[in-house]
Amino acid sequence: MARPQTDHEATAEKLLEAAEQLIRERGPVSPSVTDIANACGMSQSNVYRFFPSKEALFEAFAERWFRELDDIMEEVVAGDLPPREKLYQFFARRFAIKRARYEEDRDYFMTCMMLGDEHHDVVMSHVDLADHYMATILAEAITDGEFPGMTIDSLMAPVNLMVAPFCDPKLIPQYEGSATLDNLRIVINTLFNGLNSQNAEAPEAIDTHLKLAS
Amino acid sequence: MARPQTDHEATAEKLLEAAEQLIRERGPVSPSVTDIANACGMSQSNVYRFFPSKEALFEAFAERWFRELDDIMEEVVAGDLPPREKLYQFFARRFAIKRARYEEDRDYFMTCMMLGDEHHDVVMSHVDLADHYMATILAEAITDGEFPGMTIDSLMAPVNLMVAPFCDPKLIPQYEGSATLDNLRIVINTLFNGLNSQNAEAPEAIDTHLKLAS
Repeated sequence: MARPQTDHEATAEKLLEAAEQLIRERGPVSPSVTDIANACGMSQSNVYRFFPSKEALFEAFAERWFRELDDIMEEVVAGDLPPREKLYQFFARRFAIKRARYEEDRDYFMTCMMLGDEHHDVVMSHVDLADHYMATILAEAITDGEFPGMTIDSLMAPVNLMVAPFCDPKLIPQYEGSATLDNLRIVINTLFNGLNSQNAEAPEAIDTHLKLAS
Repeated sequence: MARPQTDHEATAEKLLEAAEQLIRERGPVSPSVTDIANACGMSQSNVYRFFPSKEALFEAFAERWFRELDDIMEEVVAGDLPPREKLYQFFARRFAIKRARYEEDRDYFMTCMMLGDEHHDVVMSHVDLADHYMATILAEAITDGEFPGMTIDSLMAPVNLMVAPFCDPKLIPQYEGSATLDNLRIVINTLFNGLNSQNAEAPEAIDTHLKLAS
């Protein structure tokens, strides 16, 4: 967590800590501005100077949750590792943090997941940012001759699907045993070794007649 | 759904249909034997002849849910397709059915997922069976020279991780857009092309110092 640098930031951080405490105590209910004012012994009008609405308060709370993760993405993308190692670090470093948060307090972690479901737009802006950074790494890999015949657009879905248990924090409980960093290394190497434009084709001799309902 | 073949089986099926109807109406609460007796105009003691407990009733309900999926696994494994196509069909045919059930009635589908969470053991026996069948296909692939240097045990976790959005029905809503059969084909081909015993190793020059909290 970055150290607050001004009185305004320090007070905002104090209000967000109060929000975190209320969520820990009460479960998946976004605290209102009134709740926070009461918890901090401040007037509502004073709290409104920092967060003009309950939604603004939640956005700041989510931004605080994502800040460390977003900083890692930026740092990895800006670094000079080879693309394969960049993609590994891109997922591994964030996964290690998410797993540590989960281990620290499983109930609070799952409560935050539920709040994220209720504030889908706020979470999606982080997911969009992650996709943007991942596309940057994949573009570097293509420039290096990886993923022969594939475009960035055609890579995004398969890569996101294959790393899902390392990326989606809601899957942490279910894949706690198998989603290790060693297995992430295997997944990333498998992607780099095996993903190319020949892969979308079924064997010619086999017509499977399968399609999805929608 | 297989056609009931005896009067006993026909009545059991009628009771399970009543259970399904109650779950559709009331959400994620397992119906009791009393509920089913009332819904079917039968005495409790008569229902007990078919299902001696609420848990036995739920087990039969789950078995009915999994029957078609388990039959597909057995059929694919017993067939004579090449291992790569077998693994594709193993996931694709079941995924198509799960997606169709989801499309047909999303609320009921998610209700069944919640009931599955509450009856973890019943679901796990199906998951264990799926792992057994998958291991059989992977063993055939290894015999054919696929996955050089890998053992069945070392393959299970990476394969399960990489196909998670096609395998775990709870992930259907989230990956509805990207989990297509074309993308499953890409994932399976990537696995076969790229997964080998070299993949577990980090590049020698890079020591990442990462580890998980637990």
